[in-house]
Amino acid sequence: MSEVVTKASAAKEAAAVLNRLTTEEKNEALLLMADALIVEQDRILAANEEDLVRGRELGTSSSLLDRLKLTPARLADIADAVKQIVDLPDPVGDVLETIHRPNGLFIEKKRVPLGVIGMIYEARPNVTVDAATLCLKTGNSVVLRGGSAAISSNRSIVSVLREALSRSAIPADALQLIEDSNRSSVDEMLKLNGLLDVIIPRGGASLIQNVVQNATVPVIETGAGICHTYVDDSADYSMAESIALNAKVQRPSVCNSMETLLLHETFARKYLNAIADKFQEAQVELRGSGIARDIVPWMNTVSDEDYATEYNDYILNIKVVKDLDEALNHIHRFGTKHSECIVTETDAHAERFLQEVDAAAVYHNASTRFTDGFEFGFGAEIGISTQKLHARGPMGLPALTSTKYRVVGSGQIRS
Amino acid sequence: MSEVVTKASAAKEAAAVLNRLTTEEKNEALLLMADALIVEQDRILAANEEDLVRGRELGTSSSLLDRLKLTPARLADIADAVKQIVDLPDPVGDVLETIHRPNGLFIEKKRVPLGVIGMIYEARPNVTVDAATLCLKTGNSVVLRGGSAAISSNRSIVSVLREALSRSAIPADALQLIEDSNRSSVDEMLKLNGLLDVIIPRGGASLIQNVVQNATVPVIETGAGICHTYVDDSADYSMAESIALNAKVQRPSVCNSMETLLLHETFARKYLNAIADKFQEAQVELRGSGIARDIVPWMNTVSDEDYATEYNDYILNIKVVKDLDEALNHIHRFGTKHSECIVTETDAHAERFLQEVDAAAVYHNASTRFTDGFEFGFGAEIGISTQKLHARGPMGLPALTSTKYRVVGSGQIRS
Repeated sequence: MSEVVTKASAAKEAAAVLNRLTTEEKNEALLLMADALIVEQDRILAANEEDLVRGRELGTSSSLLDRLKLTPARLADIADAVKQIVDLPDPVGDVLETIHRPNGLFIEKKRVPLGVIGMIYEARPNVTVDAATLCLKTGNSVVLRGGSAAISSNRSIVSVLREALSRSAIPADALQLIEDSNRSSVDEMLKLNGLLDVIIPRGGASLIQNVVQNATVPVIETGAGICHTYVDDSADYSMAESIALNAKVQRPSVCNSMETLLLHETFARKYLNAIADKFQEAQVELRGSGIARDIVPWMNTVSDEDYATEYNDYILNIKVVKDLDEALNHIHRFGTKHSECIVTETDAHAERFLQEVDAAAVYHNASTRFTDGFEFGFGAEIGISTQKLHARGPMGLPALTSTKYRVVGSGQIRS
Repeated sequence: MSEVVTKASAAKEAAAVLNRLTTEEKNEALLLMADALIVEQDRILAANEEDLVRGRELGTSSSLLDRLKLTPARLADIADAVKQIVDLPDPVGDVLETIHRPNGLFIEKKRVPLGVIGMIYEARPNVTVDAATLCLKTGNSVVLRGGSAAISSNRSIVSVLREALSRSAIPADALQLIEDSNRSSVDEMLKLNGLLDVIIPRGGASLIQNVVQNATVPVIETGAGICHTYVDDSADYSMAESIALNAKVQRPSVCNSMETLLLHETFARKYLNAIADKFQEAQVELRGSGIARDIVPWMNTVSDEDYATEYNDYILNIKVVKDLDEALNHIHRFGTKHSECIVTETDAHAERFLQEVDAAAVYHNASTRFTDGFEFGFGAEIGISTQKLHARGPMGLPALTSTKYRVVGSGQIRS
């Protein structure tokens, strides 16, 4: 048996045990994991140093190396995040519906773990801890396949966490790390129906597309966000400026940041110059055409390809539209159904936008940067789903559960 | 553009219109559809006759021909079923969560249509009406791809229904039938990410496996059921007999019927002879081994392959187990996570079974035949999901919806 099959099979066996544990037993295990990250930090930091040395040799960029790097302070933050997960309510066992049938059958729809979750992700080693603890908290086994850049860190972290589990009610086999860094181990996971119940990819567009295109195991797609902010003619200028700047520059590298600013023509003729200056001050490259470039001639020229690109960078397309309909059409054509915003003082326009835009999160007068499990008050986030099945938008703990109908009778048969 | 792309694109455009309609507008359209099935019955019956003639020429079995056949009475039943869907509450627009954040953001999680649903199914033309009306009721466009055996009936029905839609607020393009009966049209649908939001297959194991193995569009898997009934040592004999017989013979051809009866040894030694006689009277072939055949020597011999087969027929495996654990292990190994039953008077055993068996529906003292949207009181059923994501078990109208977060602010930005 391959590493993937061996480890996924062990994870499946462990899931049956995990399914019988109480919330208290799972929380105790999580606390042991959090402590172990601190107690064993020297081992983890030494392993992380191996990744950093290898990364430097390979010429990895300093920003990537920074994301890869662990420090005592960062490990303490990671351990604190585990403790926060302990404090969250356990969704498993929640009764979502109760049905009393005329024939006397009593039916309950109850939350249960999904079973075994496969996580395929890239560099940052904090995701290893985060994914492991979120899955275990919800009674799921987890098979992790991180990026090769972090393999030493991940191996060390998972070894420390499994040692902690071996002192808990959760079987250590509930947590597995695939160490084979060949692409073939990912391909194998994608087809592991019967052993994996779901695969959650986290990473860049190519990683996610590979999973979506090749998995036969059900997938929760996360990620790509080409987000728009539409500023209506009735918008308050200072609110529009503050929301647009925040959506672009507060953290351009993430999926809920803005890529294209749509401005109503009336608004643009009054304020585009001022707002363009603000973006220039913030070091944002602007791209536009037509009326936008008539008003701000120093803008670069935009292409349809630009409208379809998730820059994740200090680049912004600006488009002047003649009305709400043109804005809706642009979003319909180029949006990725992630997060979309309208800034307006006209309630009817806000309502149309919120109703008609097809996206995980639609905003009226607030920055798209709020699409996030913590900002929504979920206390955790396993990712942001951009698909429509199962979970959409920021995913908290309930997204890691399924349901089961429990039917209790007294001899009922069907006639 | 191919037929599939042309029709799916038109369906997607129509979905944007459908998304804005009220429940009343959708219900009016459904009533027009129900009426049209009666008013235009001669056209539909004539087309159905073409399918029947072709079927007879191809040597189709009489049971399949019967499933294919429409009559005025059957059309009246189908039209009545549409009217029942009109009477069901519309889940679209339901608010599932409201969140007030400390920063003043007001977040609502609201049910929305999925968008465009692809249905891939086999012979029976009633599924055409059923799928069309359930999808439209929930604000979804639908692209139907039925089996070639019913192509004339389906073409006629969809033509009649689209004529009805053209007199309603729902665009006729919201309902599409793929007429190309080549397998390539199915393959094309399976990869239509961006135009189809979900594919629901309904039919035999090979149809469903083809969809699951090849789709890149998200799938809701329905279908295969290898269901067990475990009779514990404390079970009431007459209840056990009645539940087991019902689970097997009330309608053996469906997915929630029983394929293997597991009997505690103590129970088997007392009652297996009697229960075997009952199954023999009901024309059920029995297969067993070991103790089961010691007790009932005229049983045929069972193989592991039999345990892994969904007979959908008058064949039953009987296995004697030494305790609940052996029963749970057997179900863990051979079950398809559909419907599983324990008959017992021992509450602790019932609770263990309900908790530990991983299936969409778990039963204590009732027949597995109840796993059905109508029997659960949903008033409709688009299928029975055997996967864990999105929907599990009988799927009513809410399974055909997604959600959207509506976030209303007053200028909030993220810091």
